[in-house]
Amino acid sequence: MSTGAEDPLAGSSTGTATFDWLDTRSAARAKAGLSRTLRPRPESATVLDLASNDYLGLTRDPRVTRAAADAALRWGAGATGSRLVTGTTELHAELEAELAEFCGFPAALVFSTGYAANLGVLAALSGPGTVLITDEYNHASLIDGARLSRTETVVVPHRDVSAFRDVLANRTRKRALVVTDSVFSVDGDLAPLSALAAACRDHGAGLVVDDAHGLGVIGNGAGAVTAAGLAGAPDVVVTTTLSKSLGAQGGAVLASPRVIAHLVDTARSFIFDTGLAPSTVGAALAALRIIRADPALPGRSRAVARELAERLAAAGLSSSTPSAAVVSVRAPSPTSAVEWSQQCRAEGVAVGCFRPPSVPDRVSRLRLTARADLTPAEITTAVDVITRTAPPAAVAH
Amino acid sequence: MSTGAEDPLAGSSTGTATFDWLDTRSAARAKAGLSRTLRPRPESATVLDLASNDYLGLTRDPRVTRAAADAALRWGAGATGSRLVTGTTELHAELEAELAEFCGFPAALVFSTGYAANLGVLAALSGPGTVLITDEYNHASLIDGARLSRTETVVVPHRDVSAFRDVLANRTRKRALVVTDSVFSVDGDLAPLSALAAACRDHGAGLVVDDAHGLGVIGNGAGAVTAAGLAGAPDVVVTTTLSKSLGAQGGAVLASPRVIAHLVDTARSFIFDTGLAPSTVGAALAALRIIRADPALPGRSRAVARELAERLAAAGLSSSTPSAAVVSVRAPSPTSAVEWSQQCRAEGVAVGCFRPPSVPDRVSRLRLTARADLTPAEITTAVDVITRTAPPAAVAH
Ligand SMILES: Cc1ncc(COP(=O)(O)O)c(C=O)c1O
Ligand SMILES: Cc1ncc(COP(=O)(O)O)c(C=O)c1O
Repeated sequence: MSTGAEDPLAGSSTGTATFDWLDTRSAARAKAGLSRTLRPRPESATVLDLASNDYLGLTRDPRVTRAAADAALRWGAGATGSRLVTGTTELHAELEAELAEFCGFPAALVFSTGYAANLGVLAALSGPGTVLITDEYNHASLIDGARLSRTETVVVPHRDVSAFRDVLANRTRKRALVVTDSVFSVDGDLAPLSALAAACRDHGAGLVVDDAHGLGVIGNGAGAVTAAGLAGAPDVVVTTTLSKSLGAQGGAVLASPRVIAHLVDTARSFIFDTGLAPSTVGAALAALRIIRADPALPGRSRAVARELAERLAAAGLSSSTPSAAVVSVRAPSPTSAVEWSQQCRAEGVAVGCFRPPSVPDRVSRLRLTARADLTPAEITTAVDVITRTAPPAAVAH
Repeated sequence: MSTGAEDPLAGSSTGTATFDWLDTRSAARAKAGLSRTLRPRPESATVLDLASNDYLGLTRDPRVTRAAADAALRWGAGATGSRLVTGTTELHAELEAELAEFCGFPAALVFSTGYAANLGVLAALSGPGTVLITDEYNHASLIDGARLSRTETVVVPHRDVSAFRDVLANRTRKRALVVTDSVFSVDGDLAPLSALAAACRDHGAGLVVDDAHGLGVIGNGAGAVTAAGLAGAPDVVVTTTLSKSLGAQGGAVLASPRVIAHLVDTARSFIFDTGLAPSTVGAALAALRIIRADPALPGRSRAVARELAERLAAAGLSSSTPSAAVVSVRAPSPTSAVEWSQQCRAEGVAVGCFRPPSVPDRVSRLRLTARADLTPAEITTAVDVITRTAPPAAVAH
């Protein structure tokens, strides 16, 4: 065994130096204001939540938590295996059928997470004969899906339909998939879904839409793709998550039966992953039924978002104009964004703080999520605290 | 818009042809005996389960299901966001602390799935200056993690320590990570962990071990890495899952605090994914406590596995010699493996059927999992049914 002090490839008897390089990285992140800490929250909320993705306030709805509890007691705590082995219960099938029906698709497939759904879909539907054309602001899980697929990928400017069309028209691969978020996760702006679908039709391409922030929020809750009149189209595939407006966990794909069958046979993140836990399946199903029974609920989350945005803009902050339930407010720097969000929290309002690398344009911001169940008094509190704690450079004069 | 009949890049007004290529693929899989169907199971077991990964029989243990239910009722149905935003509860922190302590590591980090843990670890700990050296039989999630990391990856023959050493010694990259399953998922054989750790020490490399099938099964349940005396080593990183012997869902990483801090800051499948649902966290914590309170439980699953294997081998079947709770029995072909497993099921015994692409060596087999709570009568039934339904070519004479 080598003593190794000089030779970078040689080891030591203790192995303590192996990960020394992490310290350099850690120091660099600290210097750039990009270190993260986990802040475990207690059982009962101590702050007003404008940071979660619980858009409809369903995650603590007794009908949803009761359904989660019942499902655990009746079906067991885990799925016990891949969905191809022992991990599919009748409860999974029930959720798939109801979700597909609600959204107007012929079939659905539940994955363990929304992330896994995106990884599975992009790899299974692409390959050497395909080009993936993806919006530059797409969610990290779509970016990772494209990477994992090892398929030629062209990134186009945000929401730029003519750029998508150019790539479609000039491609050398036979097949193409256009890939986009429906509601972009950081700013909450909408993809031009109809125009993208038309472009895909014109060029024989498939359209993959991640509707994570649209389901339960857009239209009657059936999501942005359904609201755009694209539900059930044979060339459209929707991925979504059960972890945001449905208040649970897990992902789902909505598509034609042949696409779903193909995913069952070939999507690696489906085949080689344990099925979604029954408690979570039960919770998502209960949340879905609440949305179906109350078609006004999704609209309330959007109305709250608009009100928040208007009042913040009126106070001089640089707020987005929300189409869904996400409101973003620009901050001058990563450090000031962190400080701002910490001050909000100190004054009882939890807001999201998005910094590089979680923001595609490297602009740090507060990210507020509107919940359908925020009261007028809570909205006023939120607006007051956010404006009062704003760094001077965030306010237009 | 083009009419498109001749031009492969042109579209149609309906989009129905876009995914026509899937039909060809589907037909090819059907012909090769590789089509899969989901078979939703009912609430109460109708067959004897030797197919799940519920090695300790904890997924339906009332202490575990009750804990899942309580956690949903107390903490909500979902984590509501990334663990960096709102998705970390004190329950997550509690599970991390107890898991780390039990396994003898200074820190732990819970991911939404074991798959996500593997993706996150491999990308975060590698990069351009690193070579990944991975066992050819590693689990799909490690393979996908290596792909996603876009790091130079060398695949070495199964359990071949001198091949690992060769690559370590002759590498051109400064850093190296040796990556292996502890218990290989298909055959249940063990990695040569001590020898690999020594090789890593000699060459200044890190060792990443996926202990998904070791946790709860090997030693007192603290897993294969701990049993090998490697717990807490600064150059060793363990990934594992909460979905097998813990009967729940989710993944975890065990490592030094600096590795964990690095994952919190940089692991994409941690940052951009919703936290594990509280019900599942609660279930995993309850299961962990049961294992800690009953150190004989893991050994029972291994004893059942050995008994199954011995009796099947005595009947002339080509069974593996289990070191953990997995027993594999070779089948002559994918089609005969499917038929065999279907006949077992028809006679009341559920067994796993592994075929390409889920088997690294392309040998189809039945995969049996031993549960600690199988009774002698159930073991006899299982052996009888599996031998009685065996295709003639599977039996040695
Ligand atoms: C647009 C988008 N897609 C996918 C995901 C991943 O979903 P999940 O957290 O359920 O894995 C998220 C967020 O987490 C998201 O914002
Ligand atoms: C060896 C191994 N690693 C990782 C995983 C993935 O874990 P999970 O199903 O919790 O995502 C599995 C099985 O699913 C496995 O067998």
